[in-house]
Amino acid sequence: MKTQNKLFAALTALSLLAGATHAAGPYRNPDNKNPRDVGEGTYPVPYKKPTVAEIGEALHRIRGYMDATTPTRVVHKATGAPITDFANPVAEAITSPSDGDFGIQVYEMGVVHAGLLRAAQITGDKRFTDMTARHLQFFADKLPYFRAQEQKFKLQRANSFSRFLDPRALDDAGSMCAALMRARAAGIGPDLSAQIAVCGDWVANKQYRLADGTLARKRPQTSSLWADDMYMSVPALAELGRMTGKRAHFDDAVKNVLQMSAYMFNKDKNIYTHGWHADNPDAPRFYWARANGWSVLAMSDLLDVLPKSHPGYNKVLAQLRAALHGVAELQSGTGLWHQMLDRNDSYLEASASAMFTYTIAHAINEGWISAVGYGPIAQAGWAGLSAQINAKGQVEGTCVGTTFASDQTYYYNRPTSVHALHGYGPTLLAGAEMIRLMNNPAFAIEHRVRTYHYVPKQGAKTDYSEHH
Amino acid sequence: MKTQNKLFAALTALSLLAGATHAAGPYRNPDNKNPRDVGEGTYPVPYKKPTVAEIGEALHRIRGYMDATTPTRVVHKATGAPITDFANPVAEAITSPSDGDFGIQVYEMGVVHAGLLRAAQITGDKRFTDMTARHLQFFADKLPYFRAQEQKFKLQRANSFSRFLDPRALDDAGSMCAALMRARAAGIGPDLSAQIAVCGDWVANKQYRLADGTLARKRPQTSSLWADDMYMSVPALAELGRMTGKRAHFDDAVKNVLQMSAYMFNKDKNIYTHGWHADNPDAPRFYWARANGWSVLAMSDLLDVLPKSHPGYNKVLAQLRAALHGVAELQSGTGLWHQMLDRNDSYLEASASAMFTYTIAHAINEGWISAVGYGPIAQAGWAGLSAQINAKGQVEGTCVGTTFASDQTYYYNRPTSVHALHGYGPTLLAGAEMIRLMNNPAFAIEHRVRTYHYVPKQGAKTDYSEHH
Amino acid sequence: MKTQNKLFAALTALSLLAGATHAAGPYRNPDNKNPRDVGEGTYPVPYKKPTVAEIGEALHRIRGYMDATTPTRVVHKATGAPITDFANPVAEAITSPSDGDFGIQVYEMGVVHAGLLRAAQITGDKRFTDMTARHLQFFADKLPYFRAQEQKFKLQRANSFSRFLDPRALDDAGSMCAALMRARAAGIGPDLSAQIAVCGDWVANKQYRLADGTLARKRPQTSSLWADDMYMSVPALAELGRMTGKRAHFDDAVKNVLQMSAYMFNKDKNIYTHGWHADNPDAPRFYWARANGWSVLAMSDLLDVLPKSHPGYNKVLAQLRAALHGVAELQSGTGLWHQMLDRNDSYLEASASAMFTYTIAHAINEGWISAVGYGPIAQAGWAGLSAQINAKGQVEGTCVGTTFASDQTYYYNRPTSVHALHGYGPTLLAGAEMIRLMNNPAFAIEHRVRTYHYVPKQGAKTDYSEHH
Repeated sequence: MKTQNKLFAALTALSLLAGATHAAGPYRNPDNKNPRDVGEGTYPVPYKKPTVAEIGEALHRIRGYMDATTPTRVVHKATGAPITDFANPVAEAITSPSDGDFGIQVYEMGVVHAGLLRAAQITGDKRFTDMTARHLQFFADKLPYFRAQEQKFKLQRANSFSRFLDPRALDDAGSMCAALMRARAAGIGPDLSAQIAVCGDWVANKQYRLADGTLARKRPQTSSLWADDMYMSVPALAELGRMTGKRAHFDDAVKNVLQMSAYMFNKDKNIYTHGWHADNPDAPRFYWARANGWSVLAMSDLLDVLPKSHPGYNKVLAQLRAALHGVAELQSGTGLWHQMLDRNDSYLEASASAMFTYTIAHAINEGWISAVGYGPIAQAGWAGLSAQINAKGQVEGTCVGTTFASDQTYYYNRPTSVHALHGYGPTLLAGAEMIRLMNNPAFAIEHRVRTYHYVPKQGAKTDYSEHH
Repeated sequence: MKTQNKLFAALTALSLLAGATHAAGPYRNPDNKNPRDVGEGTYPVPYKKPTVAEIGEALHRIRGYMDATTPTRVVHKATGAPITDFANPVAEAITSPSDGDFGIQVYEMGVVHAGLLRAAQITGDKRFTDMTARHLQFFADKLPYFRAQEQKFKLQRANSFSRFLDPRALDDAGSMCAALMRARAAGIGPDLSAQIAVCGDWVANKQYRLADGTLARKRPQTSSLWADDMYMSVPALAELGRMTGKRAHFDDAVKNVLQMSAYMFNKDKNIYTHGWHADNPDAPRFYWARANGWSVLAMSDLLDVLPKSHPGYNKVLAQLRAALHGVAELQSGTGLWHQMLDRNDSYLEASASAMFTYTIAHAINEGWISAVGYGPIAQAGWAGLSAQINAKGQVEGTCVGTTFASDQTYYYNRPTSVHALHGYGPTLLAGAEMIRLMNNPAFAIEHRVRTYHYVPKQGAKTDYSEHH
Repeated sequence: MKTQNKLFAALTALSLLAGATHAAGPYRNPDNKNPRDVGEGTYPVPYKKPTVAEIGEALHRIRGYMDATTPTRVVHKATGAPITDFANPVAEAITSPSDGDFGIQVYEMGVVHAGLLRAAQITGDKRFTDMTARHLQFFADKLPYFRAQEQKFKLQRANSFSRFLDPRALDDAGSMCAALMRARAAGIGPDLSAQIAVCGDWVANKQYRLADGTLARKRPQTSSLWADDMYMSVPALAELGRMTGKRAHFDDAVKNVLQMSAYMFNKDKNIYTHGWHADNPDAPRFYWARANGWSVLAMSDLLDVLPKSHPGYNKVLAQLRAALHGVAELQSGTGLWHQMLDRNDSYLEASASAMFTYTIAHAINEGWISAVGYGPIAQAGWAGLSAQINAKGQVEGTCVGTTFASDQTYYYNRPTSVHALHGYGPTLLAGAEMIRLMNNPAFAIEHRVRTYHYVPKQGAKTDYSEHH
């Protein structure tokens, strides 16, 4: 007699079919020009060398969706009617919600701006940063209004600008602060130096820390570390270092990378556990993909601006290389990565896959890791990711907001949604960096024997004369 | 062209649907009171904070089924007619079989009594131990009859009381012996000290051992260790120590835990291989879940009665902690564990899941491991397990009796059955200990951000004021 | 809302059903004579003790298919008309292609001859080597013709005998060279010593090597190692040693085993990564099953002829034991192994499974590893493999020719085909060695408690008198 636990497994399998929004695959690789080649199979994702034009088109699709779903307007909460009198604040005024309910000041939107800025930088196409400029101008214009609203009505977390006016967590401050500094460095948008001072001060000086200086939280336990916080702090500290020239910010960023890694990086698996509790330091571990995405992205962002002469540079680089090695070896057969990195029966997750694809491609382009071993992994990552971008420009398959939990049942069963903003910024970053990878003059991307080889142009001399 | 091996996989997938006996899931967590929360998905098991009433009801359902299916009667083997003349033994007399063919003197029934005793102890509800009292009274009453039958007819293994009259293996002696001593300590049932002397003597003195004193078997090879035997011996030795006060029994129990662990515990994976052969000590290993269940349950039972002053106490505790860490990190996304602990394509198995859930919950309640990291794992384990208890009080999904084998094909394809008694005792233990966990005053079980956090009441001060 | 990545998984699951060519399982073990035994389930493969007759029949089925699909004729390329004038070469002359397009001089055919020779040796049935004799006679007869064709037309790789006339790679030379030497040692076929000199010279002296002497390739990177090359070189070097008595060949074979292992063997997982690049030595690794098959087969072949007095003997034996331990622990629940050895969501692959089954059975028969732990693994391997041999004598489920790649998407999605010759030689080897295993007098194969135990006859004394 079979048992109910088998039903669970079957239900899980069937649920995989539910909700797929458009047809996909199987795909045959169009780079193989022999349609009768029996050595060529099919793929669940578009396994091919992507063209710059295709990637660019996908990026604009996402940009268009983001632009259309992030209005910068102030409206009455109940009626949705526009606020027109900005001289006399009313309690009901909020920033206009959108279909996707994408907050314009949340940390995920900081990553969207990072992606738009990177896309503009790599492609030279300023349409990407038009949205960034629009958002930042709105912040500058309406900050006085919401400050006045707060003084009058004390709305606290219900104030639409609460993250700017009253940051209380790294989530409120770090990611958007880094974006504001990057926009400033790129000459995008108005002067927001006063706001940068507020959010930078939170990250650098006000966030709770362990006694050893590691940035921490008072949830879900009294003193907990989150691997996510590497991204919520380190890029802001790094950009503060770049903007101010103060070495202390770089020191703090490096210290947090190395100390968080000491607590949360599993050196056997070469990946990060989601978090760590001061009162149960050897608790069972959960290798949540997105937390690893935040970690590698943060280290990459730091290396972008950290002076090579800094004594921590090589340590951070070594840590990033170790993490990317662990991540790369866990890529699935679809090019995407699993929700739980080390569990191939957990679902494929888009936001982490995008962060990994970006960071691997970027690390190759910066010369931090070799194109030989990592180029095809980035390319496969994009193959998987590109199939997650639907015709509307939505990124599918992103796990919704997720806390640091202590059981696999929670993590495995987190829903995914196109309204999870976490997937958008990373996918913009990934696409932008893939364009740079495709244009990288340091290697040739050879399509040989039905797969891809990234062959350095300098000194390389392969020989296929033997091949039948 | 696709190939047949893919058919195997597909058949396996389809077979998962076969035989499911009642509808299950998906479940939405009722602790989330916002029905439109897009951050809340569904679960294949009832992921929630269980109430004491629900757990108690499930325990009584199992108890009722066990009680109804374990008659204590003597009947004619061929006709089923009751034996009424107990003065003149007949060869055809047997203890009455039941629907489930549950033997009342088998080692699995020893675990059922352990579960009933624990349930009564924790809930104060003596209905649980009424069944134990009934069984033990029957043993006391009918032992003389079956002894006389044996003297007259020499039935050997075919004598219904053969395990009591002529124990030949740890399976015959240890588990039930521990149960008899526990019942005696709890004042349940008649005086069975003579029988305790017989079974105790087998475990302590007569079972085959390696030269170094590790309890072993002469099957399936000339000299083989079984991780299961940790349970088949250590609790009995521990209870002998408690009952007699003789330290030698505790020494022997500790020695067996540590030596079996030295042979069979994989320190890289932190789990036990099923067994070990003296003539092939480096054979390929098989991480059968139930063998790990027996191991952790045995260590837990030992720690319950081992004086803290015993020199082995901390070693056993450290070994239990290591094993629970390994086990916890292998929990599936359903809260249950897989038949082969390290293989997520093997089926989910109830008896091992129950032993893990019990031992983790018990270890928290005893203060051996932290509620912070392990509380949610025990709770998820019960979520998975509770869905295996059907309306009749049967436990579904238990692997039938399984020998120590040497190929995965055997282990993967062992059938499961509600008539596999191995699942019942552990599930009673798990439920009882979950009630204690739910009532444990040392921590608060917070439902925050859609999952559960076990927050110590002493000194803890979490802060969600930052949270949006 | 569910997402598209779940569609990928579902498509993958559904694709498992596609193209299955004949019905299979579930199977009930016929060695269990109790049809109502509830402890006996069913299996996706014919889990049982195979009879010598059954294995022999399967071997002849394969041999018949191979024989029928490998014509030894010279024909006009365009018309297929037989060439009759061998005095005047024409450019259009080729060896006759067959349905399966099985090349008669490719390295895979060298393995087929190895399998036929082993089958004849073990069974004493010379029908197996009739095909070998036919092929070798054709080589001897037509080599002058194709040499003259080459001198006249310079066809290079398009010459049907190009591998013999102009070897350029280990793939061209090693496997077939070993087969020619084995046939010679067995007295099969004509004198091909001149050709042995050519192919042996390529392997021993002309193939590209790393500076330390490790045999290497100039693809896919400038300097790459392939684990496959252990088989493409070591057996030929070993047979050269046996044929010539020159110790230098044995030294070279041993050196290559140990050095390739130093570069490509993962000592944590006890398996080989597919390859290694000199310019990216720490690249992410890919544990392709067939590459591991080639590796263990090569070591086994070397030990067959390496004098035990050679200083490298014990090192090679230790390395083979380590690799077989790693491989054995990764066997799937079907007895077969996965395309990516460490990934249970990749498909089950026949050629690697056959090489593992052969090498494990052979290593038991030679006394290199214990029958206790490995006998049931070989038997389960054959259970899985036997179900891959269809009624036509085709071996299903073999991955087609595969290059050393750098992404999982390529490896996971390689098609399988009955026309992939790589599966045939290994399956012949496996079946032949299984016959020897079934006849091995050193142990009894006990069917006890529904599974199989290989119990040494010397000194063993198991005891089931306790068992109920």
